[in-house]
Amino acid sequence: MTRILLFNPNTSSDVTDLLVRVAGPSLSPTSELLPVTAPRGVPYIATRAEAAIASGIVLDVLAEREGSFDVAIVAAFGDPGLGGARELMSVPVIGLAEAAMLSACMLGQRFSIVSFARALGPWFRECVVMHGLLNRLASIRLLDAKFASLASVQDEKEELLVQLALSAVEEDGADVIILAGAPLAGLAARVRERIPVPVVESVVAAVKQAELLAALNPKMASAGTFRRPDPKSSHGLSPALERLLMARPAEARS
Amino acid sequence: MTRILLFNPNTSSDVTDLLVRVAGPSLSPTSELLPVTAPRGVPYIATRAEAAIASGIVLDVLAEREGSFDVAIVAAFGDPGLGGARELMSVPVIGLAEAAMLSACMLGQRFSIVSFARALGPWFRECVVMHGLLNRLASIRLLDAKFASLASVQDEKEELLVQLALSAVEEDGADVIILAGAPLAGLAARVRERIPVPVVESVVAAVKQAELLAALNPKMASAGTFRRPDPKSSHGLSPALERLLMARPAEARS
Amino acid sequence: MTRILLFNPNTSSDVTDLLVRVAGPSLSPTSELLPVTAPRGVPYIATRAEAAIASGIVLDVLAEREGSFDVAIVAAFGDPGLGGARELMSVPVIGLAEAAMLSACMLGQRFSIVSFARALGPWFRECVVMHGLLNRLASIRLLDAKFASLASVQDEKEELLVQLALSAVEEDGADVIILAGAPLAGLAARVRERIPVPVVESVVAAVKQAELLAALNPKMASAGTFRRPDPKSSHGLSPALERLLMARPAEARS
Amino acid sequence: MTRILLFNPNTSSDVTDLLVRVAGPSLSPTSELLPVTAPRGVPYIATRAEAAIASGIVLDVLAEREGSFDVAIVAAFGDPGLGGARELMSVPVIGLAEAAMLSACMLGQRFSIVSFARALGPWFRECVVMHGLLNRLASIRLLDAKFASLASVQDEKEELLVQLALSAVEEDGADVIILAGAPLAGLAARVRERIPVPVVESVVAAVKQAELLAALNPKMASAGTFRRPDPKSSHGLSPALERLLMARPAEARS
Amino acid sequence: MTRILLFNPNTSSDVTDLLVRVAGPSLSPTSELLPVTAPRGVPYIATRAEAAIASGIVLDVLAEREGSFDVAIVAAFGDPGLGGARELMSVPVIGLAEAAMLSACMLGQRFSIVSFARALGPWFRECVVMHGLLNRLASIRLLDAKFASLASVQDEKEELLVQLALSAVEEDGADVIILAGAPLAGLAARVRERIPVPVVESVVAAVKQAELLAALNPKMASAGTFRRPDPKSSHGLSPALERLLMARPAEARS
Amino acid sequence: MTRILLFNPNTSSDVTDLLVRVAGPSLSPTSELLPVTAPRGVPYIATRAEAAIASGIVLDVLAEREGSFDVAIVAAFGDPGLGGARELMSVPVIGLAEAAMLSACMLGQRFSIVSFARALGPWFRECVVMHGLLNRLASIRLLDAKFASLASVQDEKEELLVQLALSAVEEDGADVIILAGAPLAGLAARVRERIPVPVVESVVAAVKQAELLAALNPKMASAGTFRRPDPKSSHGLSPALERLLMARPAEARS
Repeated sequence: MTRILLFNPNTSSDVTDLLVRVAGPSLSPTSELLPVTAPRGVPYIATRAEAAIASGIVLDVLAEREGSFDVAIVAAFGDPGLGGARELMSVPVIGLAEAAMLSACMLGQRFSIVSFARALGPWFRECVVMHGLLNRLASIRLLDAKFASLASVQDEKEELLVQLALSAVEEDGADVIILAGAPLAGLAARVRERIPVPVVESVVAAVKQAELLAALNPKMASAGTFRRPDPKSSHGLSPALERLLMARPAEARS
Repeated sequence: MTRILLFNPNTSSDVTDLLVRVAGPSLSPTSELLPVTAPRGVPYIATRAEAAIASGIVLDVLAEREGSFDVAIVAAFGDPGLGGARELMSVPVIGLAEAAMLSACMLGQRFSIVSFARALGPWFRECVVMHGLLNRLASIRLLDAKFASLASVQDEKEELLVQLALSAVEEDGADVIILAGAPLAGLAARVRERIPVPVVESVVAAVKQAELLAALNPKMASAGTFRRPDPKSSHGLSPALERLLMARPAEARS
Repeated sequence: MTRILLFNPNTSSDVTDLLVRVAGPSLSPTSELLPVTAPRGVPYIATRAEAAIASGIVLDVLAEREGSFDVAIVAAFGDPGLGGARELMSVPVIGLAEAAMLSACMLGQRFSIVSFARALGPWFRECVVMHGLLNRLASIRLLDAKFASLASVQDEKEELLVQLALSAVEEDGADVIILAGAPLAGLAARVRERIPVPVVESVVAAVKQAELLAALNPKMASAGTFRRPDPKSSHGLSPALERLLMARPAEARS
Repeated sequence: MTRILLFNPNTSSDVTDLLVRVAGPSLSPTSELLPVTAPRGVPYIATRAEAAIASGIVLDVLAEREGSFDVAIVAAFGDPGLGGARELMSVPVIGLAEAAMLSACMLGQRFSIVSFARALGPWFRECVVMHGLLNRLASIRLLDAKFASLASVQDEKEELLVQLALSAVEEDGADVIILAGAPLAGLAARVRERIPVPVVESVVAAVKQAELLAALNPKMASAGTFRRPDPKSSHGLSPALERLLMARPAEARS
Repeated sequence: MTRILLFNPNTSSDVTDLLVRVAGPSLSPTSELLPVTAPRGVPYIATRAEAAIASGIVLDVLAEREGSFDVAIVAAFGDPGLGGARELMSVPVIGLAEAAMLSACMLGQRFSIVSFARALGPWFRECVVMHGLLNRLASIRLLDAKFASLASVQDEKEELLVQLALSAVEEDGADVIILAGAPLAGLAARVRERIPVPVVESVVAAVKQAELLAALNPKMASAGTFRRPDPKSSHGLSPALERLLMARPAEARS
Repeated sequence: MTRILLFNPNTSSDVTDLLVRVAGPSLSPTSELLPVTAPRGVPYIATRAEAAIASGIVLDVLAEREGSFDVAIVAAFGDPGLGGARELMSVPVIGLAEAAMLSACMLGQRFSIVSFARALGPWFRECVVMHGLLNRLASIRLLDAKFASLASVQDEKEELLVQLALSAVEEDGADVIILAGAPLAGLAARVRERIPVPVVESVVAAVKQAELLAALNPKMASAGTFRRPDPKSSHGLSPALERLLMARPAEARS
């Protein structure tokens, strides 16, 4: 059985539930999802500052649960803390944005990212750059309007989001659309017939990429830029994280 | 059941058999592999000219078998004919190199491609460029020596290939190693303990990415750069390909 | 006398005739043109799939005629099969797009490509990328309308093509205009007074670049990425191509 | 009087003292330094994970001291938390690496970064990428050896660091050397006569760039990617940070 | 006392006076400005040809005054002759554009350059490329209208320049605005409240960067691409420049 | 008859004679060469400063001779003053480096530049960047040794230059070699049999590209970044250049 930790670094547990519901049907019979919601932070991460806050929390939570999962998904589009987590953990870690974008690359030349809040733009763009995929990006298109609640934003704005996707195809040259952000999970299936190019459901992509990584069964790096760091003392951090920073070489998976 | 066409555009059927053997254990219970070997061409594609020849053959074979599979893998590292096939077919098509490289991106920042013949270098590099992944490539390292047979090259050169991988890690900054080329299928598992970074088994990556694409169930593009081309008459081509070029809009999957 | 093979990889012989008519006056007295039309394929290549089909045909035709020419032009904008041909042949081979774009580089900083069918866009763009000239490209502007016939498209759409060129100058920052595609041969001279920047006539550029290459008289590469490949057996290909793949090192020009 | 917060995100207060000592003589008479050492974290940040941890701490400390300074320096080469801090704070914030690299750009075409621990490489490189300065980077050269203590590493390794700098000039084409990392503060003055190109003292560069920003007196952005975020509720964070996330628009400097 | 040569390579002395007036208040008490206006050339440099003419004049003037200053500013946005001057002089030399752009980099991700004459566009863009900062450029926006006089252009066009800045922010994604060109000195302070992102005053940036370089006190390069050239004879040039070309190694600052 | 101005911006007239001798045999019967040597400047341009000086001289000489030629070659590898000359003149102007590099692009993927003096490196590299061809450059390899005289450097260093070319092929991946610098004219023919890839003779490339431009007969741009500048007064420049700056729109070729 492959245990997939699905960690939502936002504090909104209804979004976590939504992710589980949408990903479920695609899960292989030999996989199981372990959903976890951020114990602190903001309801949904939207800016560089909030992503910086979240990245420490990602490390805390993964450190605390180490050993209980075989692969982890950082389930916020923008992938906060991904690099650090990949460096520290002895099992593969992937990001929601990373999984969606790499999957989109197999369906066309350039993809557009469509989401529900203008504030997300800079953070999303830096995420694309971090993954070295700027030359595969057609555009980022974002709604610039208030919404009633995070839980219902995909219903409330469905038509406007489809319009953004159509503009991305017609004006920006998108071959593929990514409806980005955990709160939009499940929307792809509902709107696919209205969009003339493939639409990627991020959380399905993430779960299947997690299964792929489990199948590849990669060893933990002891060289390269993701090699296990040397043990380091620290203070004032969470006990699990202090322990992981201090002890990791000894406990590394062979 | 997801029917995955595994098309080897080389004419060496023992390589096709090897690919099936290596990919089998990773296959989901709900997938099946349909292996096909190129009916004409060269035993193994190594140069731009041979790739150009193969790309027409890929289109011929996929056109001929259209309808009998749900997703296709072009199983030669270098991905001959991939763009054209993705444009023409109503189901997803992926390349062996593409699948391996995108999977490697989730295991580190930069990957190196290691293979067994110097002649492969220019073609492999153009493949990396075609996929827009040059900024994720650490190096291409190739043996420069004769080998007895394609079927046994991975045994004969195992030690030298490991040495190349180690050089890629130590001198080129590779975080991940891809042992490239269908004739090296299965080698990753045998050498992984001797290489200090993750090693990607290309055909496993390809099969799992094929399953991912099936799970995403993308519609065929009617816009963007991979939109269905208009019907076009031709002459002197294979009957299946002439038919596909002529009729494709009418028969496109909705 | 420099024998210049002018191979039109489209099957439309009237386009071949047009190319010869337009290029003629620029030909040096010591050059002669050998026009050849594709014996099979499509009337005009417009998509990745059609370019893939054409690239094998380019190799077939050049292999068959080897020895009868001193330099070859692949006379379809998009340059199908160019890399493979350059690798295999013992004399220089250039592409229509390549010749036009490199010539445009001497007339300004960035050029725009203007042509008559929207379907050409993705293929043209990949051609620009293949030549490493994306940073010299201002835009690709294409008509999006039916035309009566390939032979008369330049007359029928003359005014619209001029409008596209003007938009490229005013909105995209083009310093030079390339009217692209063999069916537009001859149009540059007719519209040049209506366009405020230099306009490149592709086939004139190709013929003069062919003469330049003949003057440089380059030896065939025995090193680098275009070195002569080792002989390789094949089956099911055209006899001339099988012979060339098998015998090329022995027969290479010193 | 310009109040410059010099925040050392490492927990080593002797490094903070060193930075103050080295920067002092360059300080304008109308500036004063407010040194602060990280209250929690690691003695010196060296990896992606440690930088992720530090970036949250940077936000905590700046939030807590908001109003008491006119410009802030994040004084760890690698600039943890810089983007988020720039977004949240109403005064300019700069990074030690940023200041050193931009200053180096005025002294030559490409700079090399030289430092004392191999572990720093990936983080430093991502910092260069984040600032869009990869095309100005000649190389990163790092010692690969243990050192006795952080406080004395610059004395202990002085000769080896000079050798690295010389290699960067001779083999990598560096026009300028940056001795990177807060623990190396002050070394530039001691070794400058042994290095044939300009050497940048990072903390002097940072203090002078801070004075420049104060002289420019920029208003806080209410548009663009660094516009003030909308107020957002959070929980489980430090009180100062929760307050800043919630209240910032109201309190923003006009 | 730091002697800062402020050389205006335009022949308009009223622009020189303006630069001095605007820069004055930011000058440290330990710095003094030595303003010089070009003795020949054009009233304001706007094209590649005029910049080529100016670059020789920059070398003439700096050669003539060598020894009388500690750092030099080439005070025309576009930085004519900067590379050659940096190579030849024994003290630091910076450009007005360089100083403004590097300062803007600390205030946001991408900056826009706004100026008063369309003719300046190509030269400004090549300047951005020369400094390797194209990935930090959001746009160049230029007025396309006649103006009464260079001296009053900033008053006459104030409102239109603010409109361009607003368009750069809203449509091009600028985080920072640079009002470019010496004739616009002083405008930033007047319009800053009407522009929602930071506005860089170029000459203030230049003067403060000059002070920073003086504080770094870099030695002259004897290696790297800015190493002192070997002595070279010449004829027909200005006596000061001939002397400097011939004698420079002997007189170089240690 | 096409009149080709061959302007050597170095003051060494024996180099001019050499260029004429080498280019002669490739000249079309309908072309004639008008050789001119720089009346002032340095014997051979090698640094940024010397190139800046030369660029003004190029404009002076071309202005003075305007009307007497149909196309001009700036015959120093590095192309001093090319952009300005292209902007000002009513006929095409090309550079020696530009012509050689664009021609090399038709003979392989990447070229190396080989020359006789280390001082040339930075200038040559900036020339490659200026032409946007960095991605086609394999390397620049330069001798680092004194030579007896400019006139005989190609004989004296022939063997060492061949060694550099071989290193460029074997270690840097060059597909084509450019023996750069006017003093090496004629060397390509002598060493071609010892180098396993095509070798470009720069001045032959330049003369044939000049004939190509004459065949294209481009109109002078009245739009784009090379549009004719508006008339501008100046003082202290050469009479011919002052006249050209002032009068050009009126006299522009239609």
